[in-house]
Amino acid sequence: MSRESDLRRQLRLIVLTHPRPAGGNLVDVVAECLEAGCRAIQLRDKQAPAADLYRQTLDLLPLVRAHDALLFVNDRLDVALAAGADGVHLGPDDIPVEAVRARVPDTFRIGYSTDDPPVGRAAAVAGADYLGVGAVFGTISKVGLEDEAIGPERVGEVVRSCGLPCVGIGGITLENAAAVAAQGAGVAVLGAVMQAGRPGDVVRDLLQVLSRAADEPAAQEAPGT
Amino acid sequence: MSRESDLRRQLRLIVLTHPRPAGGNLVDVVAECLEAGCRAIQLRDKQAPAADLYRQTLDLLPLVRAHDALLFVNDRLDVALAAGADGVHLGPDDIPVEAVRARVPDTFRIGYSTDDPPVGRAAAVAGADYLGVGAVFGTISKVGLEDEAIGPERVGEVVRSCGLPCVGIGGITLENAAAVAAQGAGVAVLGAVMQAGRPGDVVRDLLQVLSRAADEPAAQEAPGT
Repeated sequence: MSRESDLRRQLRLIVLTHPRPAGGNLVDVVAECLEAGCRAIQLRDKQAPAADLYRQTLDLLPLVRAHDALLFVNDRLDVALAAGADGVHLGPDDIPVEAVRARVPDTFRIGYSTDDPPVGRAAAVAGADYLGVGAVFGTISKVGLEDEAIGPERVGEVVRSCGLPCVGIGGITLENAAAVAAQGAGVAVLGAVMQAGRPGDVVRDLLQVLSRAADEPAAQEAPGT
Repeated sequence: MSRESDLRRQLRLIVLTHPRPAGGNLVDVVAECLEAGCRAIQLRDKQAPAADLYRQTLDLLPLVRAHDALLFVNDRLDVALAAGADGVHLGPDDIPVEAVRARVPDTFRIGYSTDDPPVGRAAAVAGADYLGVGAVFGTISKVGLEDEAIGPERVGEVVRSCGLPCVGIGGITLENAAAVAAQGAGVAVLGAVMQAGRPGDVVRDLLQVLSRAADEPAAQEAPGT
């Protein structure tokens, strides 16, 4: 299997972390997600000092490695590099993708957030490995801010225009994940897993839904598309 | 001249930046400081998104290079590396010095903040190139927080115990800078320069005071020490 299709498979479901998951401490919850089959974790804590984020990355890495999964750090390239994570997830407020790509090893993965097809194409040229596209169904995970929902069709537009693996993000649940997968994208999930009492069960159910949708994409398309 | 004594000379005075200096826009104020003889600038903006800090670092670098000076970025190793700055200044809330040292080129400078001699020695072993020691005379530069003043003698204790170039920081002015220099340390100045209408004049006066104190260290010591 090629390196890119390997990445697409691993990015079928990214679990984004919350510093205080409902289902237990962060390490235990991540372990449950990995045991349930999740192959990509994004460590995300916009308030934590870099020292804490670094320590958490070191805590999670052995678990992630044991499951042949990927660990991304949100925003903090320095933490990702210093701790030896697999990649970083960047957005428009972060260091530009091309500046990061020029300074990191080829094997280091760069994710970038956009819902705009031309921006996604530019990120691909600049050296991004995948895109986070959203907010698909809206989200309240960014403090005090509700992002506008772009809908799954827009995710499909980005998928078809950029040539990179894409993951839809924002308000994704068991009920709506298939509509995103039908667009040829993986999903990034925060609340649905982090607010669950049994996060492993949610991951297992999500992976089943996603796998079914990936096998029958046509059946998931909205009428008339 | 050896590389270390070169660094000591450059670190006689570090000007720390404020995002909105009283004397003009940041680039102009930094240019004035460099023209006045300052050889080390630390870009410091704890609120700015990484993208802005990166852009500011790129804006300042040509100026700093033209004056054979050093540019450090506060906290953000990723910004410093991506933009090609000379170093980063770290504190206890940042990625540990040894983890940073292991991932950056030998020529990349690492500063570390501490007022504790054993912690300073540990930072030297871990790979720090210089220490920021304070708050010497207290400061209100950290939002809403007044640091306790440690006094210049404590700076001298750190200087004598760690073997690294040290700069005193916190509430340093034209009036008290000599007392810090007399301890064998350089000074890091924020408010005295950033709040000045003519920052170049303050830098020139500071360098004169510091140069005199460095030439006659004994005369600056408090009686009985």
